[in-house]
Amino acid sequence: MQPVLIDGNWRAADAGGRFQASNPATAEKLPDIYPISSWNDCDAALASAARAFEVLSSVPRSQIAGFLRTLADKIEARAAELSETASAETGYPIKPRLADVELPRTTGQLRQAAAACEDETWTEPTIDTKLNIRNRLEPIGPVAVFGPNNFPFAFGSASGGDFAAAIAAGCPVIAKANTSHPATTRLFAEEGAKAAQATGLPAGMVQLIYRTSHADGERLVADPRLGASAYTGSRSAGLKLKSAADAAGKPIYLELSSVNPVIILPGALGERFDKVVDEFASSCLMGTGQFCTNPGLLLLVAGDATDRFIDAVAKRFDATPPGVLLSAGVGESLARGIETLVASGAKKVTAGAKPSAGGIRSPNTLLRATGREFLANPHALQTECFGNQSLVVVATDIDELVAVLNCLEGNLTGCVYSDTAGGDDGSYTRLEPHLRRRVGRLLNDKMPTGVAVSTAMNHGGPYPATGHAGFTAVGIPAALHRFGVLACYDGVRDARLPTSLRNKNPNGRLWRFIDGNWSQGDVG
Amino acid sequence: MQPVLIDGNWRAADAGGRFQASNPATAEKLPDIYPISSWNDCDAALASAARAFEVLSSVPRSQIAGFLRTLADKIEARAAELSETASAETGYPIKPRLADVELPRTTGQLRQAAAACEDETWTEPTIDTKLNIRNRLEPIGPVAVFGPNNFPFAFGSASGGDFAAAIAAGCPVIAKANTSHPATTRLFAEEGAKAAQATGLPAGMVQLIYRTSHADGERLVADPRLGASAYTGSRSAGLKLKSAADAAGKPIYLELSSVNPVIILPGALGERFDKVVDEFASSCLMGTGQFCTNPGLLLLVAGDATDRFIDAVAKRFDATPPGVLLSAGVGESLARGIETLVASGAKKVTAGAKPSAGGIRSPNTLLRATGREFLANPHALQTECFGNQSLVVVATDIDELVAVLNCLEGNLTGCVYSDTAGGDDGSYTRLEPHLRRRVGRLLNDKMPTGVAVSTAMNHGGPYPATGHAGFTAVGIPAALHRFGVLACYDGVRDARLPTSLRNKNPNGRLWRFIDGNWSQGDVG
Repeated sequence: MQPVLIDGNWRAADAGGRFQASNPATAEKLPDIYPISSWNDCDAALASAARAFEVLSSVPRSQIAGFLRTLADKIEARAAELSETASAETGYPIKPRLADVELPRTTGQLRQAAAACEDETWTEPTIDTKLNIRNRLEPIGPVAVFGPNNFPFAFGSASGGDFAAAIAAGCPVIAKANTSHPATTRLFAEEGAKAAQATGLPAGMVQLIYRTSHADGERLVADPRLGASAYTGSRSAGLKLKSAADAAGKPIYLELSSVNPVIILPGALGERFDKVVDEFASSCLMGTGQFCTNPGLLLLVAGDATDRFIDAVAKRFDATPPGVLLSAGVGESLARGIETLVASGAKKVTAGAKPSAGGIRSPNTLLRATGREFLANPHALQTECFGNQSLVVVATDIDELVAVLNCLEGNLTGCVYSDTAGGDDGSYTRLEPHLRRRVGRLLNDKMPTGVAVSTAMNHGGPYPATGHAGFTAVGIPAALHRFGVLACYDGVRDARLPTSLRNKNPNGRLWRFIDGNWSQGDVG
Repeated sequence: MQPVLIDGNWRAADAGGRFQASNPATAEKLPDIYPISSWNDCDAALASAARAFEVLSSVPRSQIAGFLRTLADKIEARAAELSETASAETGYPIKPRLADVELPRTTGQLRQAAAACEDETWTEPTIDTKLNIRNRLEPIGPVAVFGPNNFPFAFGSASGGDFAAAIAAGCPVIAKANTSHPATTRLFAEEGAKAAQATGLPAGMVQLIYRTSHADGERLVADPRLGASAYTGSRSAGLKLKSAADAAGKPIYLELSSVNPVIILPGALGERFDKVVDEFASSCLMGTGQFCTNPGLLLLVAGDATDRFIDAVAKRFDATPPGVLLSAGVGESLARGIETLVASGAKKVTAGAKPSAGGIRSPNTLLRATGREFLANPHALQTECFGNQSLVVVATDIDELVAVLNCLEGNLTGCVYSDTAGGDDGSYTRLEPHLRRRVGRLLNDKMPTGVAVSTAMNHGGPYPATGHAGFTAVGIPAALHRFGVLACYDGVRDARLPTSLRNKNPNGRLWRFIDGNWSQGDVG
């Protein structure tokens, strides 16, 4: 049985059960056996994390940044093993996906987080010189990270965006591995523990538990020693954690389901039909559709071009060999989702031939419903089908499209494709306000599947896409805000202030909001 | 029966009951009769607020700022009537409290909010020029404001800090009056409705309901048409609303109880004994102690000076005529709180003579417990006693004081008084990290009762002082952040962007975070 990482030691878990991951490309179990930790492991991890957090408050930010950079280097040194391990646990190809795309994204993210940690601009130091009141964000405390199945590196519990943001904010992390890729997470945690030791950070900086009972997970996110939690995954499990955390007054940042509506207006089809077919079909099927921002709901206006478009996409779906899904659970959930859509009035457009290759796969599935059908059953027809599936809703006109938008739940993204000559501009203007309020990120003429690690990114959106639309899970420094609390100093003597709030700007580069203006200067 | 304000009309409530406010200075009921609205009133208000919110999205921010300034002017024109009405409902003196302090604070706050609304710096426009991704905060939707009993103007549901912040953020407000001052709230709502009309804003901009059943209140904060809620008041009622809002994924910003620990170190007593006695006793008894930031927990180290200090404060308590409390409910809750403290080991230090004047009053009450007693019963001895009461905990030494701090719940504020010669510096350094993590605002050598409307203020703190320690209820522009959601524009054509995100800076003054630096310039 694999050990857990608690308080800097790889030690036998206090286990109440065991599990194995599978290789979805073969549907066979992988040899390693992992523990289902009891509360004792959670309790020990919380105690260590709380001690680490106390120590961290007096550690220079440059040292924490050094940890993040050291970890990035160590990940690069172990890239081949990481990619092989993750490929066996996820079915993703080593190249380009894991080694060439996700791994550089992950190390780049860690280095961006290091820079944000060091420069402290994310803390938004705010100074009122007249009243001598000063304010900034300070770290919230230990953070529990529950990573998703679909990004073993870039959103991994011990390597990804939430991990990097929490550490950069000054918060130790208790990583709960995604149970579909425990070995990958273990490799990251090994490097994390080494990096903490190499940079002189406390033993509780990075800890790893593979799995707990649901009850212990709920107890973990509500524990008084915890600052906050970050969760990316299914809506049902996420909402149970939210309920437990909410009742204890503990922030929990959730990234849940999203169908990511894409509107393609008639002018765009008229102007660049083939290009749009290609962009949509590629975005749908890339990574076997297993992206949070996969375009699961396509909104079109009835017409000949629309019918031809659906045919062309269906041909692409039929001609593309279905990819491997992440786990048997993903396959079952996808099948149930498609059944729900069909039972709610959607019709299958694709042939749905059984995949010829082995492993866990599902036919590429395109469904179709009318705007009227959607409006009669909007809740069921927004069922997220995580995987290689998309539902096309064909509205009779823009008015019906507005009605459809007004039935949408909160989503991470919403796209509008329109022509460049201005023919769709009137429709865009009508639709935009309705879509805008229901999505975190609004795109023009591009698919939502790319989520750049940009200062201006929002990987967030209205509930139930996330738990709080004021925060983003991707983008640095903004993603760090989730792990900050306002800490105000009123009349505190200058020498007692944190250096970032003293009269003298600590390095002449830090941006501070002084008397209502952003400045890199000193006070007075 | 007084009418409610729904959709711009003062109309008869759909009432399921009625209530009257009382004059606490006489303990007699006031003549006006107010309705307890049924769900129908809430439903109608939500529908109107949702319509107003749609309209507001295309209204220039200068027009909303104009509304806030017009309202401030109208409040000043009606100042005498407002102060008389509020005095009758709260027992507060017209001068200086209502007319000279709270009213100017309220209008100043509205004008600061107007400026913040207009300049949009609060939205933190963020631009990544390389990837053409742009992000900012946009209004969350209609906001329900539940104002407290203790600031009929400055935190009033239709006039105060939450109201001003929500409107300035672009959100219509449904005001739920505090039931202890319905007439005051009605006057503000009258001016609000007139100001909306005068500035061409929608009818649902400001609406007023006086009271609902608990169940309807919970339904209101969870309604899909609502964006968020802001609540200031008792912990028990606030947590019920939080539970309902959380279950629906609706943000609710709560400002609940706080005992506001004040540490006075031995050197400060040695250096300026009389001044500190005066500051502490004044802060405790001002406004009959009815401030969220009232110093309810004084922490001292055992010694002769400490005993003399407690004696001196007790003499001030005994010599000061007890003020009027806000309502019979406040008086009962205060009496229950003091009983809890006594039952948990605290001893009364003051004589506790019955007040000679009429109305709702309670003796000025100072209690005392040892550090050991506190540590044996930390939860009960942190019972908030809203009113003219304070508990002194005398620790044997700094170590015990640290242990006491580590038992504290989240608080709005924490103060440390120390000497100026440096004799207390070692103790300060030991205590500060423990206090810092448990309070939203840390003060040196001053009492917590002043809450300036400053860019750097934090009127917030860890749960259960508030619902989320990342936000503040006072301070502009920061208080507006509660009512914003991240709205990202990815590849959106320049002419379709909100003006604040276009390449050209709309006025050369707006601060924007462009490629990692704050700037007032254009892009490119």
